[in-house]
Amino acid sequence: MTTMSEVNIRRAHRDDVATIVAMLADDHLGGARERIEVPLPNAYFAAFEKVDRDPNFALVVAEDGAGAVVGCLQLCIMPGLSSQGASRGLIEDVRVASNRRSRGIGEQLVQWAVGEARARGCKLVELLTHHSRLDAQRFYERLGFARSHVGMTIRF
Amino acid sequence: MTTMSEVNIRRAHRDDVATIVAMLADDHLGGARERIEVPLPNAYFAAFEKVDRDPNFALVVAEDGAGAVVGCLQLCIMPGLSSQGASRGLIEDVRVASNRRSRGIGEQLVQWAVGEARARGCKLVELLTHHSRLDAQRFYERLGFARSHVGMTIRF
Repeated sequence: MTTMSEVNIRRAHRDDVATIVAMLADDHLGGARERIEVPLPNAYFAAFEKVDRDPNFALVVAEDGAGAVVGCLQLCIMPGLSSQGASRGLIEDVRVASNRRSRGIGEQLVQWAVGEARARGCKLVELLTHHSRLDAQRFYERLGFARSHVGMTIRF
Repeated sequence: MTTMSEVNIRRAHRDDVATIVAMLADDHLGGARERIEVPLPNAYFAAFEKVDRDPNFALVVAEDGAGAVVGCLQLCIMPGLSSQGASRGLIEDVRVASNRRSRGIGEQLVQWAVGEARARGCKLVELLTHHSRLDAQRFYERLGFARSHVGMTIRF
């Protein structure tokens, strides 16, 4: 085990978009889906604005002591009728910078999201993780998540 | 095979809430989570209002030729940075009235949701289905979904 890196979880700003996209791309599954160009394609900024202005979505980053962004996560709070009208939380796009992994940064991000969802009245938090991400599945189980569902997807 | 029942998919109204909750409860997993009382607990109506006023959520029902509500589904459209800023669709709470199953109603609901997500710019539609729902998994595979992910949940 390496030491824990204490991070500050804060709402993402427009200035963080390039760093976030670089983390999304630095991944065996995500790499092929992103376009890392200078300047970054405008679609990323347009998506950021949509997330940023909707209170049901929270895109957050983990910032280290020096102010560097070293992780990200998106939480979606979804109202719905089931479970007596309780909202549900969905966690998406959890990433930690490749040179900062295994220091508890992902854990702090996910714990933040679970706490935030709970504070906002959710009775359930859910996520999909690719079946090939065995380390991620063990990580989430350690944080109290169960492998209760099959995650199914269709891409266009 | 029984005959297909052609249904009309329309946005849910406040008057549909009790019927939707009855369908959510009529299920081996959902039954224990709902409170079917007369009048229905107000939390269901409060949740309906939240869903109804947010354009990112669509709660729809399937209506048969006689105007009876025989199915429901909730679609959530989530903006996000990944996949070049494409939105994602999440399908939740798919139910068909127990006496109207195996007539293609669920298929029409899911095809509506996939088409709507695509029309709204999503590149991906995802859903979680409990690992015990083997019929549901086969159903979604038939509609083009892949069992690509593990669905993980934490309940409070």
